[in-house]
Amino acid sequence: MPADNALIASSNLSANEAKDSRIQLPLRIAIFGFGTVGSSVARILVDSKPEGLKLTHVFNRNVARKRVDWVPSDVTWSEDAEAVLASDADVIVELAGGLDPAGGWLRRALEAGKSVVTANKKLIAYQGVELERLAAARGGHLKYGAAVAGGIPVIPGLEQGLAGDRIERMEAILNGTCNFILSKMEGGAEYAAVLATAQANGYAEADPTEDVGGFDARAKLAILMRLALRVVVDPEEIIPQSITPVSAVDFSYARDLSCTIRQIARAEERDGTVAATVGPMLVDQRSPLAWSRGTENMVILTGRYGGDVVFSGHGAGGHPTAVAVVSDLLALAHGSRRVEIPSVPARIAAEFEVPHYIRFLVVDRPGIVSEITGALARERINIRAIMQKPGYPQDALPFVITVEPCKSSALKRALANIAKMDCLLESPLDLQMLE
Amino acid sequence: MPADNALIASSNLSANEAKDSRIQLPLRIAIFGFGTVGSSVARILVDSKPEGLKLTHVFNRNVARKRVDWVPSDVTWSEDAEAVLASDADVIVELAGGLDPAGGWLRRALEAGKSVVTANKKLIAYQGVELERLAAARGGHLKYGAAVAGGIPVIPGLEQGLAGDRIERMEAILNGTCNFILSKMEGGAEYAAVLATAQANGYAEADPTEDVGGFDARAKLAILMRLALRVVVDPEEIIPQSITPVSAVDFSYARDLSCTIRQIARAEERDGTVAATVGPMLVDQRSPLAWSRGTENMVILTGRYGGDVVFSGHGAGGHPTAVAVVSDLLALAHGSRRVEIPSVPARIAAEFEVPHYIRFLVVDRPGIVSEITGALARERINIRAIMQKPGYPQDALPFVITVEPCKSSALKRALANIAKMDCLLESPLDLQMLE
Repeated sequence: MPADNALIASSNLSANEAKDSRIQLPLRIAIFGFGTVGSSVARILVDSKPEGLKLTHVFNRNVARKRVDWVPSDVTWSEDAEAVLASDADVIVELAGGLDPAGGWLRRALEAGKSVVTANKKLIAYQGVELERLAAARGGHLKYGAAVAGGIPVIPGLEQGLAGDRIERMEAILNGTCNFILSKMEGGAEYAAVLATAQANGYAEADPTEDVGGFDARAKLAILMRLALRVVVDPEEIIPQSITPVSAVDFSYARDLSCTIRQIARAEERDGTVAATVGPMLVDQRSPLAWSRGTENMVILTGRYGGDVVFSGHGAGGHPTAVAVVSDLLALAHGSRRVEIPSVPARIAAEFEVPHYIRFLVVDRPGIVSEITGALARERINIRAIMQKPGYPQDALPFVITVEPCKSSALKRALANIAKMDCLLESPLDLQMLE
Repeated sequence: MPADNALIASSNLSANEAKDSRIQLPLRIAIFGFGTVGSSVARILVDSKPEGLKLTHVFNRNVARKRVDWVPSDVTWSEDAEAVLASDADVIVELAGGLDPAGGWLRRALEAGKSVVTANKKLIAYQGVELERLAAARGGHLKYGAAVAGGIPVIPGLEQGLAGDRIERMEAILNGTCNFILSKMEGGAEYAAVLATAQANGYAEADPTEDVGGFDARAKLAILMRLALRVVVDPEEIIPQSITPVSAVDFSYARDLSCTIRQIARAEERDGTVAATVGPMLVDQRSPLAWSRGTENMVILTGRYGGDVVFSGHGAGGHPTAVAVVSDLLALAHGSRRVEIPSVPARIAAEFEVPHYIRFLVVDRPGIVSEITGALARERINIRAIMQKPGYPQDALPFVITVEPCKSSALKRALANIAKMDCLLESPLDLQMLE
């Protein structure tokens, strides 16, 4: 490829910079996990031949069934993790996911002074700080640009271009599966049917709990909170709300409120206290969050000085995630170092004070609205609107109350009392309204 | 500020990293140009106290009138550029703008081995490659994250998170003044009135030619082309089209086409040839480019592997631009190095083949449409639609022809012939339609 050679020949800076940092080029790369992302990483390394990177090992269980003919013949295929960890590979690209055994491999690689590039959001959310310390102590580097919003450079954006700001708030769509489901439901589809489509297309797992329950998004939120709000939190303290109770009637009411519904991960820091939550929320149709459709991800960061910055793109999928991995590898090869953003441990001690949308499903009888509004009044929660659309049966009647900004805890107490009412067919659905 | 001290105390990595790179911290910073951006940079340095950065000098002509009391008393205020260049400042923050005398200061600083952080898009667009070589040769660094789309980390995004992709196309809103004017005109305002408002608000210069003529955007486009498409082009080869001929009637026709009008800077690389242009264009109302309002900037990059990535935010203004400057300073202090993206010189030799919107203003008489369509047919340009709204006078009648994708050069030849027609009150307005 003459064009590519010309490109490489014109760049001498990188080799010098690498020499300065005593990095031997090319970096020898071992991929752990040859699934969709792993094979996309190999594909980019083989096709694009990024300067300074050389694929040397592929590790996978039962590796024989993974072998492909387009990978150069000098690459070692192995199902022996220990052998690859003990090899002369400089960087482990960990794409297996989960805490075990990936965490063990990663730790041993860092202990041996190797660098690690990973897309493992769970491991980074729960053990990132400790693993970064280990990397620094042994002279290696840990990079995880692919762990959050794969193809969108939000982590480099925070570490580089926004490091000079103080991010005070963020709202994000971090789970492509939920965004696919909810944006299809916005178009009129039913939850079960969309989930089945998502599973057939490989956007959702057979057990979709990690995604629809909000656990995946909260791990990513915890990672972004460290870089954006500069706080280290225990992801378990972020209470996720599942999207499964959201139904067609909620999209219909949301539309009447000039809104739609998205799974939002949000966090803010105010006067040293931190609030964070994940769940389905009403977002204004004019908000960028409403534009995000299909499996797209979006991150909106609000800085004290720079105001709002929006990033959007493909958050997952083989190729977009692989771009983030290869970019991290290039950063290592070029001796690029990130701005170390200081962070402090923090508890999630604050609450959002926002308006709420509450949808009830009742067997109709006189006095229901009076009882519900009475329970809200006792917690000093002001009602914004009461909406009841025609066309639903009396014995399974949905209606909606929206309330002015209030503390979630006060609303939870009111709803706990309301939940005791015999007319309720299910727990009220309580969604934050983003403003 | 105890909270900030705690943050700093928890980060020891940065000091170690800086030591590795033989950088003496804190970096001593001299600001050249104490206007809106310069004073915002000083404000962030003084208020946020980012680790490793110390403001030591402020240079400005007639500096006495610039003095402010919130800057620490040990900062040297000077109107002698040579004295500040000869001082012990480590980094020159150049915010004066323009090729001269800023280019001379910057060159002397780099020759002395100092590093430079600049927001000077013109200097970087025209002399960036040469200045980067000078910096590398003398051991300093040149950073210009603030030169394009100030508050949006698109340059760090390209240098870090997207370095592993091959960007093939970009469409961007890079001039906040034009976006302010056109998005206000979309709402019904007249050009002259909006321009006056923009001038009163400080969004537009007394002579707005740089902005509305597309010269500002093309300098920024040239900078992004180097990092995104990896080509070095002469900005003068990018022919800009002014937004001034766009009028209310065009927004009215655009709406009928489910479009709006924005100043777009676009470039693409296909099979080694490069196309680039700047000017008002029709954009689909569903495109992110249509969402961008007011002085916002937006950049959409399309990668071979990662697909579309969208960045948006405040492209200019004191604080957002200052965030980009301080982020660059932090990158220097932390010994952060970017991935050197190789690039090759290129000519702008290709044309976009897109549909066009052509608006005519005529004194009505029989045969006009026949003559115009005949001229288009002779260049083998296919007509998509002919639109003529009622309610305009016969002696100044606007009507619109849209054509299927065609080479700009063929359309230019046809329009040159059409321009000879005696019924035309002004040159036809020819706008690309983005698809």
